[in-house]
Amino acid sequence: MADYRLHYAPDNASLAVRLALEELGAPYATRLVDRAAKAQQGAVYRAVNPAGLIPALETPDGVIFETGAILLWLADRHGRMAPLPGDPARGDFLKWLFFTSNTLHLMLRMSFYPGKFVGDDAAAQAALCATLRAWHAVDMTLPRALHLLDTHVAARGPGPDMLDCYLAPLLRWCALYPAGGTAWFRLADFPALAELAARMEARPSGQAAARAEGLGPTPFTAPRPCDPPEGSAT
Amino acid sequence: MADYRLHYAPDNASLAVRLALEELGAPYATRLVDRAAKAQQGAVYRAVNPAGLIPALETPDGVIFETGAILLWLADRHGRMAPLPGDPARGDFLKWLFFTSNTLHLMLRMSFYPGKFVGDDAAAQAALCATLRAWHAVDMTLPRALHLLDTHVAARGPGPDMLDCYLAPLLRWCALYPAGGTAWFRLADFPALAELAARMEARPSGQAAARAEGLGPTPFTAPRPCDPPEGSAT
Repeated sequence: MADYRLHYAPDNASLAVRLALEELGAPYATRLVDRAAKAQQGAVYRAVNPAGLIPALETPDGVIFETGAILLWLADRHGRMAPLPGDPARGDFLKWLFFTSNTLHLMLRMSFYPGKFVGDDAAAQAALCATLRAWHAVDMTLPRALHLLDTHVAARGPGPDMLDCYLAPLLRWCALYPAGGTAWFRLADFPALAELAARMEARPSGQAAARAEGLGPTPFTAPRPCDPPEGSAT
Repeated sequence: MADYRLHYAPDNASLAVRLALEELGAPYATRLVDRAAKAQQGAVYRAVNPAGLIPALETPDGVIFETGAILLWLADRHGRMAPLPGDPARGDFLKWLFFTSNTLHLMLRMSFYPGKFVGDDAAAQAALCATLRAWHAVDMTLPRALHLLDTHVAARGPGPDMLDCYLAPLLRWCALYPAGGTAWFRLADFPALAELAARMEARPSGQAAARAEGLGPTPFTAPRPCDPPEGSAT
Protein backbone atom coordinates (compact mmCIF):
# COMPACT_ATOMS: atom_id res chain seq x y z
CA MET A 1 0.00 0.00 0.00
CA ALA A 2 1.18 3.47 -0.84
CA ASP A 3 2.38 5.70 1.97
CA TYR A 4 1.48 8.81 0.05
CA ARG A 5 -1.06 10.19 -2.36
CA LEU A 6 -0.01 13.11 -4.55
CA HIS A 7 -2.66 15.49 -5.83
CA TYR A 8 -1.17 16.69 -9.10
CA ALA A 9 -1.70 18.24 -12.49
CA PRO A 10 0.73 17.63 -15.35
CA ASP A 11 3.71 20.00 -15.35
CA ASN A 12 2.44 21.83 -12.27
CA ALA A 13 4.51 22.29 -9.12
CA SER A 14 3.46 18.76 -8.20
CA LEU A 15 6.17 17.66 -10.66
CA ALA A 16 8.79 18.65 -8.06
CA VAL A 17 7.14 16.36 -5.50
CA ARG A 18 6.85 13.54 -8.03
CA LEU A 19 10.58 13.77 -8.74
CA ALA A 20 11.26 13.65 -4.99
CA LEU A 21 9.04 10.60 -4.43
CA GLU A 22 10.70 8.85 -7.36
CA GLU A 23 14.17 9.67 -6.00
CA LEU A 24 13.17 8.32 -2.59
CA GLY A 25 11.66 5.18 -4.10
CA ALA A 26 8.62 5.79 -1.89
CA PRO A 27 5.40 4.04 -2.94
CA TYR A 28 2.83 6.65 -3.89
CA ALA A 29 -0.53 6.94 -5.56
CA THR A 30 -1.64 9.95 -7.56
CA ARG A 31 -4.89 11.81 -7.99
CA LEU A 32 -5.31 14.10 -10.97
CA VAL A 33 -6.64 17.60 -10.24
CA ASP A 34 -8.68 18.63 -13.28
CA ARG A 35 -7.38 22.11 -14.00
CA ALA A 36 -9.50 22.41 -17.15
CA ALA A 37 -12.53 22.34 -14.81
CA LYS A 38 -10.74 24.54 -12.22
CA ALA A 39 -11.07 21.69 -9.75
CA GLN A 40 -8.25 23.17 -7.66
CA GLN A 41 -10.63 25.94 -6.65
CA GLY A 42 -13.59 23.69 -5.93
CA ALA A 43 -14.90 22.55 -2.57
CA VAL A 44 -13.58 18.98 -2.89
CA TYR A 45 -9.99 20.10 -3.43
CA ARG A 46 -10.25 22.93 -0.91
CA ALA A 47 -11.02 20.29 1.71
CA VAL A 48 -7.58 18.86 0.91
CA ASN A 49 -5.76 22.18 0.48
CA PRO A 50 -7.71 25.25 1.64
CA ALA A 51 -5.28 27.49 -0.25
CA GLY A 52 -6.48 25.91 -3.51
CA LEU A 53 -2.99 25.35 -4.87
CA ILE A 54 -1.39 22.27 -6.44
CA PRO A 55 0.34 20.14 -5.11
CA ALA A 56 -0.95 18.55 -1.94
CA LEU A 57 0.40 15.32 -0.47
CA GLU A 58 -1.63 13.00 1.73
CA THR A 59 0.69 11.43 4.31
CA PRO A 60 0.33 9.28 7.44
CA ASP A 61 0.54 12.59 9.35
CA GLY A 62 -2.20 14.30 7.33
CA VAL A 63 -2.19 16.51 4.29
CA ILE A 64 0.84 18.68 3.56
CA PHE A 65 0.80 21.40 0.92
CA GLU A 66 3.27 24.04 -0.24
CA THR A 67 5.92 22.53 -2.51
CA GLY A 68 8.84 23.59 -0.32
CA ALA A 69 7.20 22.26 2.83
CA ILE A 70 6.50 18.88 1.23
CA LEU A 71 10.05 18.51 -0.10
CA LEU A 72 11.55 19.42 3.27
CA TRP A 73 9.19 17.15 5.21
CA LEU A 74 9.99 14.21 2.89
CA ALA A 75 13.74 14.77 3.25
CA ASP A 76 13.52 14.81 7.04
CA ARG A 77 11.20 11.81 7.19
CA HIS A 78 13.32 9.67 4.90
CA GLY A 79 16.62 10.99 6.21
CA ARG A 80 18.11 11.88 2.86
CA MET A 81 17.99 14.24 -0.14
CA ALA A 82 18.86 17.21 2.11
CA PRO A 83 21.28 18.06 4.92
CA LEU A 84 19.46 16.99 8.09
CA PRO A 85 19.07 19.12 11.24
CA GLY A 86 22.47 19.41 12.92
CA ASP A 87 24.37 19.18 9.63
CA PRO A 88 26.39 22.40 9.15
CA ALA A 89 25.03 22.59 5.58
CA ARG A 90 21.41 22.64 6.79
CA GLY A 91 21.18 26.44 6.95
CA ASP A 92 22.43 26.84 3.40
CA PHE A 93 19.92 24.32 2.15
CA LEU A 94 17.03 25.97 3.99
CA LYS A 95 17.80 29.49 2.85
CA TRP A 96 17.91 28.55 -0.82
CA LEU A 97 14.82 26.37 -0.49
CA PHE A 98 12.85 29.29 0.93
CA PHE A 99 14.34 31.64 -1.67
CA THR A 100 13.28 29.26 -4.44
CA SER A 101 9.79 29.10 -2.97
CA ASN A 102 9.08 32.74 -2.26
CA THR A 103 11.13 34.39 -4.99
CA LEU A 104 11.84 32.22 -8.06
CA HIS A 105 8.66 30.14 -7.89
CA LEU A 106 6.47 33.12 -6.98
CA MET A 107 7.95 35.35 -9.70
CA LEU A 108 7.36 32.63 -12.27
CA ARG A 109 3.74 32.28 -11.15
CA MET A 110 3.36 36.03 -11.53
CA SER A 111 4.79 35.85 -15.03
CA PHE A 112 2.43 33.02 -16.03
CA TYR A 113 -0.73 34.48 -14.52
CA PRO A 114 -0.19 38.24 -14.36
CA GLY A 115 -3.93 38.82 -14.10
CA LYS A 116 -4.02 37.11 -10.72
CA PHE A 117 -1.70 39.80 -9.40
CA VAL A 118 -2.72 43.00 -11.20
CA GLY A 119 -6.26 42.24 -12.39
CA ASP A 120 -7.56 42.45 -15.95
CA ASP A 121 -5.78 45.60 -17.13
CA ALA A 122 -3.56 44.59 -20.06
CA ALA A 123 -1.08 47.43 -19.57
CA ALA A 124 -0.63 46.55 -15.91
CA GLN A 125 -0.06 42.90 -16.87
CA ALA A 126 2.55 43.92 -19.45
CA ALA A 127 4.27 46.16 -16.89
CA LEU A 128 4.42 43.32 -14.39
CA CYS A 129 5.92 40.88 -16.90
CA ALA A 130 8.47 43.42 -18.13
CA THR A 131 9.57 44.28 -14.60
CA LEU A 132 10.00 40.66 -13.62
CA ARG A 133 12.43 40.22 -16.49
CA ALA A 134 14.33 43.53 -16.52
CA TRP A 135 17.70 42.77 -14.97
CA HIS A 136 18.52 46.20 -13.57
CA ALA A 137 15.11 47.74 -12.98
CA VAL A 138 14.44 46.37 -9.53
CA ASP A 139 16.12 44.64 -6.62
CA MET A 140 15.14 41.18 -7.76
CA THR A 141 14.24 39.87 -11.19
CA LEU A 142 13.93 36.41 -12.68
CA PRO A 143 17.43 36.50 -14.24
CA ARG A 144 18.96 37.68 -10.94
CA ALA A 145 17.18 35.01 -8.94
CA LEU A 146 18.46 32.36 -11.37
CA HIS A 147 21.97 33.77 -11.18
CA LEU A 148 21.97 33.59 -7.37
CA LEU A 149 20.76 29.99 -7.45
CA ASP A 150 23.33 29.13 -10.12
CA THR A 151 26.06 30.44 -7.82
CA HIS A 152 24.72 28.40 -4.91
CA VAL A 153 24.45 25.17 -6.90
CA ALA A 154 27.97 25.63 -8.31
CA ALA A 155 29.35 26.03 -4.77
CA ARG A 156 27.30 23.21 -3.30
CA GLY A 157 28.34 20.61 -5.84
CA PRO A 158 26.26 17.98 -7.61
CA GLY A 159 23.21 16.72 -5.79
CA PRO A 160 20.70 15.57 -6.27
CA ASP A 161 18.91 16.93 -3.28
CA MET A 162 15.40 18.26 -2.82
CA LEU A 163 16.42 21.61 -4.29
CA ASP A 164 17.24 19.87 -7.58
CA CYS A 165 13.75 18.35 -7.64
CA TYR A 166 12.34 21.84 -7.17
CA LEU A 167 14.60 23.68 -9.61
CA ALA A 168 14.38 21.28 -12.58
CA PRO A 169 10.64 21.96 -13.15
CA LEU A 170 11.12 25.71 -12.60
CA LEU A 171 13.86 25.78 -15.26
CA ARG A 172 11.51 23.96 -17.61
CA TRP A 173 8.83 26.54 -16.97
CA CYS A 174 11.18 29.45 -17.68
CA ALA A 175 11.61 28.10 -21.21
CA LEU A 176 7.91 27.52 -21.86
CA TYR A 177 5.38 29.60 -20.02
CA PRO A 178 6.12 33.23 -19.13
CA ALA A 179 3.54 35.61 -20.61
CA GLY A 180 5.18 38.08 -22.96
CA GLY A 181 7.79 35.62 -24.19
CA THR A 182 10.73 33.51 -23.11
CA ALA A 183 13.51 35.11 -25.18
CA TRP A 184 15.05 36.49 -21.98
CA PHE A 185 15.84 32.94 -20.80
CA ARG A 186 18.83 30.94 -21.99
CA LEU A 187 19.63 27.95 -19.80
CA ALA A 188 23.28 28.10 -20.90
CA ASP A 189 23.60 31.48 -19.13
CA PHE A 190 23.35 29.54 -15.85
CA PRO A 191 25.93 26.75 -16.20
CA ALA A 192 25.44 25.03 -12.85
CA LEU A 193 21.67 25.02 -13.33
CA ALA A 194 22.13 23.67 -16.86
CA GLU A 195 24.15 20.78 -15.44
CA LEU A 196 21.49 20.22 -12.79
CA ALA A 197 18.79 20.05 -15.50
CA ALA A 198 20.86 17.58 -17.53
CA ARG A 199 21.51 15.40 -14.47
CA MET A 200 17.85 15.33 -13.47
CA GLU A 201 16.55 14.34 -16.89
CA ALA A 202 19.12 11.55 -17.16
CA ARG A 203 18.08 10.02 -13.84
CA PRO A 204 15.38 7.34 -13.53
CA SER A 205 13.31 9.84 -11.51
CA GLY A 206 13.33 12.38 -14.31
CA GLN A 207 12.52 9.76 -16.92
CA ALA A 208 9.65 8.33 -14.86
CA ALA A 209 8.19 11.78 -14.30
CA ALA A 210 8.51 12.65 -17.98
CA ARG A 211 6.64 9.47 -18.95
CA ALA A 212 3.89 10.00 -16.38
CA GLU A 213 3.25 13.61 -17.33
CA GLY A 214 4.10 13.60 -21.07
CA LEU A 215 7.09 15.95 -20.82
CA GLY A 216 9.08 14.58 -23.77
CA PRO A 217 12.65 13.25 -24.02
CA THR A 218 14.48 16.38 -22.79
CA PRO A 219 12.05 17.80 -20.22
CA PHE A 220 14.50 20.10 -18.46
CA THR A 221 17.26 21.01 -20.91
CA ALA A 222 15.19 21.51 -24.05
CA PRO A 223 11.55 21.34 -23.00
CA ARG A 224 8.58 21.27 -25.28
CA PRO A 225 4.95 21.76 -24.20
CA CYS A 226 3.67 18.76 -22.31
CA ASP A 227 1.42 16.19 -23.92
CA PRO A 228 0.08 14.40 -20.86
CA PRO A 229 -1.69 11.03 -20.96
CA GLU A 230 -4.45 12.61 -18.87
CA GLY A 231 -5.30 16.08 -17.62
CA SER A 232 -3.90 19.41 -18.70
CA ALA A 233 -1.14 21.66 -17.45
CA THR A 234 -3.24 24.79 -17.32
CA MET B 1 29.98 35.81 23.62
CA ALA B 2 26.96 35.90 21.39
CA ASP B 3 26.17 32.86 19.29
CA TYR B 4 24.41 34.96 16.69
CA ARG B 5 24.56 38.31 14.98
CA LEU B 6 21.34 39.64 13.49
CA HIS B 7 21.53 42.08 10.60
CA TYR B 8 18.39 44.14 11.03
CA ALA B 9 16.51 47.33 10.30
CA PRO B 10 13.74 48.58 12.62
CA ASP B 11 10.35 47.06 11.88
CA ASN B 12 11.71 45.03 8.98
CA ALA B 13 11.32 41.24 8.70
CA SER B 14 14.29 41.01 11.05
CA LEU B 15 11.76 41.77 13.80
CA ALA B 16 10.47 38.20 13.47
CA VAL B 17 13.96 36.84 14.06
CA ARG B 18 14.51 39.19 17.00
CA LEU B 19 11.31 37.91 18.62
CA ALA B 20 12.50 34.34 18.08
CA LEU B 21 15.94 34.99 19.59
CA GLU B 22 14.31 36.70 22.59
CA GLU B 23 11.92 33.77 23.05
CA LEU B 24 14.84 31.33 22.93
CA GLY B 25 16.89 33.44 25.34
CA ALA B 26 19.79 33.06 22.92
CA PRO B 27 22.61 35.59 23.27
CA TYR B 28 22.79 37.69 20.12
CA ALA B 29 24.41 40.83 18.83
CA THR B 30 22.83 43.10 16.25
CA ARG B 31 24.10 45.09 13.31
CA LEU B 32 21.95 47.87 11.89
CA VAL B 33 21.49 47.88 8.13
CA ASP B 34 21.14 51.53 7.09
CA ARG B 35 18.10 51.48 4.84
CA ALA B 36 18.14 55.26 4.43
CA ALA B 37 21.45 54.79 2.59
CA LYS B 38 20.17 51.62 0.81
CA ALA B 39 22.93 49.68 2.53
CA GLN B 40 21.00 46.44 1.98
CA GLN B 41 21.80 46.75 -1.72
CA GLY B 42 25.46 47.65 -1.25
CA ALA B 43 28.49 45.41 -1.69
CA VAL B 44 29.17 45.05 2.06
CA TYR B 45 25.69 43.70 2.80
CA ARG B 46 25.57 41.63 -0.39
CA ALA B 47 28.63 39.78 0.90
CA VAL B 48 26.43 38.74 3.84
CA ASN B 49 23.22 38.15 1.88
CA PRO B 50 23.63 38.15 -1.92
CA ALA B 51 19.86 38.51 -2.31
CA GLY B 52 20.11 41.95 -0.66
CA LEU B 53 17.21 41.35 1.71
CA ILE B 54 16.88 41.92 5.45
CA PRO B 55 17.28 39.91 7.72
CA ALA B 56 20.43 37.84 7.74
CA LEU B 57 21.71 35.91 10.75
CA GLU B 58 25.36 35.06 11.30
CA THR B 59 25.55 31.67 13.02
CA PRO B 60 28.28 29.18 13.95
CA ASP B 61 27.29 27.40 10.70
CA GLY B 62 27.59 30.51 8.53
CA VAL B 63 25.11 33.11 7.39
CA ILE B 64 21.45 32.20 7.02
CA PHE B 65 18.95 34.46 5.33
CA GLU B 66 15.26 34.21 4.44
CA THR B 67 13.05 34.84 7.47
CA GLY B 68 11.31 31.46 7.29
CA ALA B 69 14.60 29.58 6.91
CA ILE B 70 16.12 31.34 9.92
CA LEU B 71 13.09 30.69 12.14
CA LEU B 72 13.01 27.02 11.17
CA TRP B 73 16.74 26.55 11.62
CA LEU B 74 16.62 28.17 15.08
CA ALA B 75 13.70 25.97 16.15
CA ASP B 76 15.51 22.80 15.07
CA ARG B 77 18.83 23.87 16.60
CA HIS B 78 17.33 24.80 19.96
CA GLY B 79 14.79 21.98 19.94
CA ARG B 80 11.75 24.12 20.65
CA MET B 81 9.32 26.73 19.32
CA ALA B 82 8.18 24.33 16.57
CA PRO B 83 7.19 20.68 16.21
CA LEU B 84 10.48 18.87 15.53
CA PRO B 85 11.07 16.34 12.73
CA GLY B 86 9.14 13.17 13.55
CA ASP B 87 6.40 15.04 15.42
CA PRO B 88 3.06 14.42 13.65
CA ALA B 89 2.43 18.19 13.78
CA ARG B 90 5.61 18.97 11.83
CA GLY B 91 3.91 18.93 8.43
CA ASP B 92 1.22 21.37 9.53
CA PHE B 93 3.83 23.72 10.90
CA LEU B 94 5.94 23.58 7.74
CA LYS B 95 3.07 24.16 5.33
CA TRP B 96 1.85 27.27 7.12
CA LEU B 97 5.41 28.55 7.55
CA PHE B 98 6.01 28.31 3.80
CA PHE B 99 2.57 29.78 3.09
CA THR B 100 3.35 32.72 5.37
CA SER B 101 6.67 33.22 3.60
CA ASN B 102 5.68 32.93 -0.03
CA THR B 103 2.11 34.25 0.14
CA LEU B 104 1.33 36.55 3.09
CA HIS B 105 4.83 38.02 3.44
CA LEU B 106 5.33 38.33 -0.31
CA MET B 107 1.91 39.91 -0.91
CA LEU B 108 2.60 42.44 1.82
CA ARG B 109 5.96 43.31 0.26
CA MET B 110 4.18 43.80 -3.05
CA SER B 111 1.66 46.10 -1.40
CA PHE B 112 4.40 48.17 0.26
CA TYR B 113 6.66 48.46 -2.77
CA PRO B 114 4.44 48.00 -5.81
CA GLY B 115 7.03 49.68 -8.04
CA LYS B 116 9.45 46.82 -7.43
CA PHE B 117 6.95 44.47 -9.05
CA VAL B 118 5.31 46.51 -11.83
CA GLY B 119 7.79 49.34 -12.44
CA ASP B 120 7.11 53.07 -12.31
CA ASP B 121 3.68 53.17 -13.95
CA ALA B 122 1.25 54.59 -11.37
CA ALA B 123 -1.83 52.90 -12.85
CA ALA B 124 -0.11 49.51 -12.79
CA GLN B 125 0.90 50.07 -9.17
CA ALA B 126 -2.69 50.98 -8.24
CA ALA B 127 -3.99 47.89 -10.06
CA LEU B 128 -1.56 45.68 -8.17
CA CYS B 129 -2.55 47.10 -4.78
CA ALA B 130 -6.26 46.86 -5.53
CA THR B 131 -5.98 43.25 -6.68
CA LEU B 132 -4.02 42.21 -3.60
CA ARG B 133 -6.88 43.47 -1.45
CA ALA B 134 -9.98 42.48 -3.45
CA TRP B 135 -11.39 39.42 -1.70
CA HIS B 136 -13.16 37.80 -4.64
CA ALA B 137 -11.17 39.00 -7.62
CA VAL B 138 -8.42 36.39 -7.61
CA ASP B 139 -7.48 33.05 -6.11
CA MET B 140 -5.53 34.57 -3.26
CA THR B 141 -5.70 37.98 -1.66
CA LEU B 142 -4.38 39.45 1.55
CA PRO B 143 -7.72 39.02 3.42
CA ARG B 144 -7.98 35.41 2.24
CA ALA B 145 -4.43 34.60 3.27
CA LEU B 146 -5.12 36.07 6.72
CA HIS B 147 -8.35 34.11 7.00
CA LEU B 148 -6.57 30.82 6.20
CA LEU B 149 -3.89 31.54 8.79
CA ASP B 150 -6.54 32.55 11.34
CA THR B 151 -8.23 29.18 10.84
CA HIS B 152 -4.91 27.35 11.28
CA VAL B 153 -3.96 29.24 14.45
CA ALA B 154 -7.41 28.67 15.95
CA ALA B 155 -7.10 24.91 15.33
CA ARG B 156 -3.50 24.71 16.48
CA GLY B 157 -4.08 26.42 19.83
CA PRO B 158 -1.97 29.00 21.60
CA GLY B 159 1.73 28.98 20.89
CA PRO B 160 3.97 30.65 20.91
CA ASP B 161 5.93 28.96 18.20
CA MET B 162 8.05 30.33 15.39
CA LEU B 163 4.95 31.06 13.31
CA ASP B 164 3.79 33.51 15.99
CA CYS B 165 7.11 35.32 15.79
CA TYR B 166 6.60 35.61 12.03
CA LEU B 167 2.92 36.57 12.07
CA ALA B 168 2.99 39.25 14.76
CA PRO B 169 5.17 41.62 12.68
CA LEU B 170 3.17 40.89 9.53
CA LEU B 171 -0.08 41.79 11.35
CA ARG B 172 1.57 45.02 12.48
CA TRP B 173 2.53 45.80 8.90
CA CYS B 174 -1.02 45.20 7.61
CA ALA B 175 -2.20 48.05 9.84
CA LEU B 176 0.56 50.47 8.88
CA TYR B 177 2.19 50.16 5.51
CA PRO B 178 0.20 48.99 2.48
CA ALA B 179 0.26 51.56 -0.33
CA GLY B 180 -3.24 52.75 -1.15
CA GLY B 181 -4.48 52.51 2.42
CA THR B 182 -5.10 50.12 5.27
CA ALA B 183 -8.89 50.49 5.64
CA TRP B 184 -9.33 46.92 4.33
CA PHE B 185 -7.60 45.53 7.43
CA ARG B 186 -9.33 45.07 10.78
CA LEU B 187 -7.46 42.80 13.16
CA ALA B 188 -10.72 41.89 14.91
CA ASP B 189 -11.89 40.18 11.70
CA PHE B 190 -9.28 37.49 12.44
CA PRO B 191 -9.92 36.51 16.06
CA ALA B 192 -7.22 33.87 16.49
CA LEU B 193 -4.65 36.20 14.96
CA ALA B 194 -5.85 39.02 17.21
CA GLU B 195 -5.25 36.79 20.23
CA LEU B 196 -1.83 35.86 18.87
CA ALA B 197 -0.94 39.55 18.52
CA ALA B 198 -2.11 40.28 22.07
CA ARG B 199 -0.14 37.33 23.46
CA MET B 200 3.04 38.31 21.65
CA GLU B 201 3.01 41.93 22.78
CA ALA B 202 2.40 40.87 26.41
CA ARG B 203 5.40 38.56 26.43
CA PRO B 204 8.90 39.67 27.46
CA SER B 205 10.06 38.94 23.90
CA GLY B 206 7.53 41.36 22.43
CA GLN B 207 8.32 44.02 24.98
CA ALA B 208 12.07 43.70 24.45
CA ALA B 209 11.65 43.92 20.68
CA ALA B 210 9.36 46.95 20.99
CA ARG B 211 11.94 48.75 23.16
CA ALA B 212 14.83 47.90 20.84
CA GLU B 213 13.07 49.05 17.69
CA GLY B 214 10.79 51.83 19.00
CA LEU B 215 7.49 50.10 18.24
CA GLY B 216 5.42 51.65 21.03
CA PRO B 217 3.34 50.06 23.81
CA THR B 218 0.92 48.05 21.60
CA PRO B 219 3.13 47.06 18.69
CA PHE B 220 0.92 44.27 17.32
CA THR B 221 -2.68 44.99 18.37
CA ALA B 222 -2.76 48.76 17.82
CA PRO B 223 0.49 49.67 16.09
CA ARG B 224 1.76 53.14 15.43
CA PRO B 225 4.65 54.03 13.13
CA CYS B 226 7.94 53.08 14.68
CA ASP B 227 10.22 55.62 16.30
CA PRO B 228 13.45 53.66 16.50
CA PRO B 229 16.43 54.68 18.63
CA GLU B 230 18.61 54.26 15.53
CA GLY B 231 18.04 53.60 11.86
CA SER B 232 14.82 53.79 9.88
CA ALA B 233 12.18 51.29 8.86
CA THR B 234 12.20 52.23 5.19
